[in-house]
Amino acid sequence: MTSYQRIVLAARPRGEVKPSDFRLETQDVPAIADGQVLVRNHYLSLDPYMRGRMSEAKSYAAPQALNETMIGGTAGQVVASRHPKFAVGDFVVGVLGWTEVAVTDGCMLRKVDTSHIPLSAYLGTVGMPGMAAWYGLNQIMQPKAGETIVVTAASGAVGSVVGQLGKLRGCRVVGVAGGPEKCAYVVDELGFDACVDYKAGQLLADLAAATPNGIDAIFENVGGPILDAALPRTNAFGRIALCGLIAGYNGSDMSIKNFRFLLTSRLTLRGFIVTEHMEYWPQGLSELGLLVAGGKLRYRESIAAGLAAAPQAFIGLLHGKNFGKQLVKLI
Amino acid sequence: MTSYQRIVLAARPRGEVKPSDFRLETQDVPAIADGQVLVRNHYLSLDPYMRGRMSEAKSYAAPQALNETMIGGTAGQVVASRHPKFAVGDFVVGVLGWTEVAVTDGCMLRKVDTSHIPLSAYLGTVGMPGMAAWYGLNQIMQPKAGETIVVTAASGAVGSVVGQLGKLRGCRVVGVAGGPEKCAYVVDELGFDACVDYKAGQLLADLAAATPNGIDAIFENVGGPILDAALPRTNAFGRIALCGLIAGYNGSDMSIKNFRFLLTSRLTLRGFIVTEHMEYWPQGLSELGLLVAGGKLRYRESIAAGLAAAPQAFIGLLHGKNFGKQLVKLI
Repeated sequence: MTSYQRIVLAARPRGEVKPSDFRLETQDVPAIADGQVLVRNHYLSLDPYMRGRMSEAKSYAAPQALNETMIGGTAGQVVASRHPKFAVGDFVVGVLGWTEVAVTDGCMLRKVDTSHIPLSAYLGTVGMPGMAAWYGLNQIMQPKAGETIVVTAASGAVGSVVGQLGKLRGCRVVGVAGGPEKCAYVVDELGFDACVDYKAGQLLADLAAATPNGIDAIFENVGGPILDAALPRTNAFGRIALCGLIAGYNGSDMSIKNFRFLLTSRLTLRGFIVTEHMEYWPQGLSELGLLVAGGKLRYRESIAAGLAAAPQAFIGLLHGKNFGKQLVKLI
Repeated sequence: MTSYQRIVLAARPRGEVKPSDFRLETQDVPAIADGQVLVRNHYLSLDPYMRGRMSEAKSYAAPQALNETMIGGTAGQVVASRHPKFAVGDFVVGVLGWTEVAVTDGCMLRKVDTSHIPLSAYLGTVGMPGMAAWYGLNQIMQPKAGETIVVTAASGAVGSVVGQLGKLRGCRVVGVAGGPEKCAYVVDELGFDACVDYKAGQLLADLAAATPNGIDAIFENVGGPILDAALPRTNAFGRIALCGLIAGYNGSDMSIKNFRFLLTSRLTLRGFIVTEHMEYWPQGLSELGLLVAGGKLRYRESIAAGLAAAPQAFIGLLHGKNFGKQLVKLI
């Protein structure tokens, strides 16, 4: 292998992301220097937060640079090493971006054990999305047994973990997802108590029916009309973990009309970025890994084939076309 | 005195509160039984929260009953007592409502010392509004010296205390108030670092100029466009104490367009009702009382004369026509 492909950001999207915002490039595989590692990526992780990085608007992280490899989490294998901590053949997760291979100095690169946990799970349930779920549930929502929690984007990489962790705590768990197929999966396979199909046209009535005792905590991935539907059903002293607002990532109006319920229900809402709370990762990943290895946390993956498929898969993710964790499989 | 006047809720307002939503009634002064106290009210407190009670919509408290005395905080003097803890002549604060006299069993009635603190201050800076300020600042905003805090309705009973407590902590304190007169008062008399006049037509530019280092914490009394202006200027990990949303109390649209900054700035927002946190009142009132007695907390009162003036004064309060704590003086 003397050359490889990568995808760079070609243009900042205006509104909807288009395939032409990306460009596929061929590069020569570089030689590695002392202290460096050459990694062959097996999987790319596609995540909604990437939409924010593509813009120049003020956000929590610097924007993705134009004409540079799109950022993103990766799982792969070391194919050459002049680094004392990594050997050829090691399975590693990192943040190497939308590229078939990458050279790294090993920062942010972590060896993982694939004997009981599939490599791809380290990008999902036992990776950043799983940790987002773990952190939001344990540090912000803190639900007690018997409380009702609502999880939006419930069949997704994050929401699916939130709901299953909530069930393990003895909560009534209500998901919100798009379409009967996802809702059936959320209830039948993930074990949520109920799932509201926001595309069915009766969100308010369906959410009311699914939360007869109101809502004690919300894990919010979506925002917009879905959050507006949930706010009036909140109980006093409810908690909202604000993890994502995917409904607005393409520039849609994200007004919240029912904001006043934050006051009248005396809610606590906290926005968070899980990569800013790395001190919780060892504990959280250990718990999540044990649950996955023990078959107690289920997940589903949408796998696009080949690097060139990444832009379209990412665009689909922003429209909820994925079903579970969205990955791109490179080899 | 054999008869007295009171004001009852005659009708639930639709949209704007009207004088005809209230009715002035004359009643006979009742005899008191064992364990009861007869109080002559000197001052009524008028507060924005009362607007919420006038509606039947879901909220944190039961609605004000029709044809019953309007609820509200009061300060007055005991004129007859068959209660072992209260003697004729005692100054007392309570929640006796919009009435010249009231009979009470002493629950919620508290003797106060007027030797260093004026009686009316127990309805403002050393009462519920002061405690709302104290709780929001100390328990939610928790600002550090050097941080920038923004206080809306800055010249009001609550906002004025928040800002002065913030200055005592070494913060940069920026108020938002309506009109040049209130803004001058906020800066010149209360000692805020700056005050933005939201009626001046350039809220965004003025707020930006007043917060060159962004905003670390917000005390929110207003909501609507003012909160929308502040959200984009929040720094990472900012805190918002949500005490009131007076902009919407008459039914106006209270959409928050910039909700997404709660995520991108990783804000923590908490709605609160200070009467649910009585465990902090002894400490808070003691601190506030010492500051008032020592001349370190300044305040201003708008005083309407006579019970019959209460409805119009309340309507004015909802439109920001008061200047400082709105009271009704009965004798």
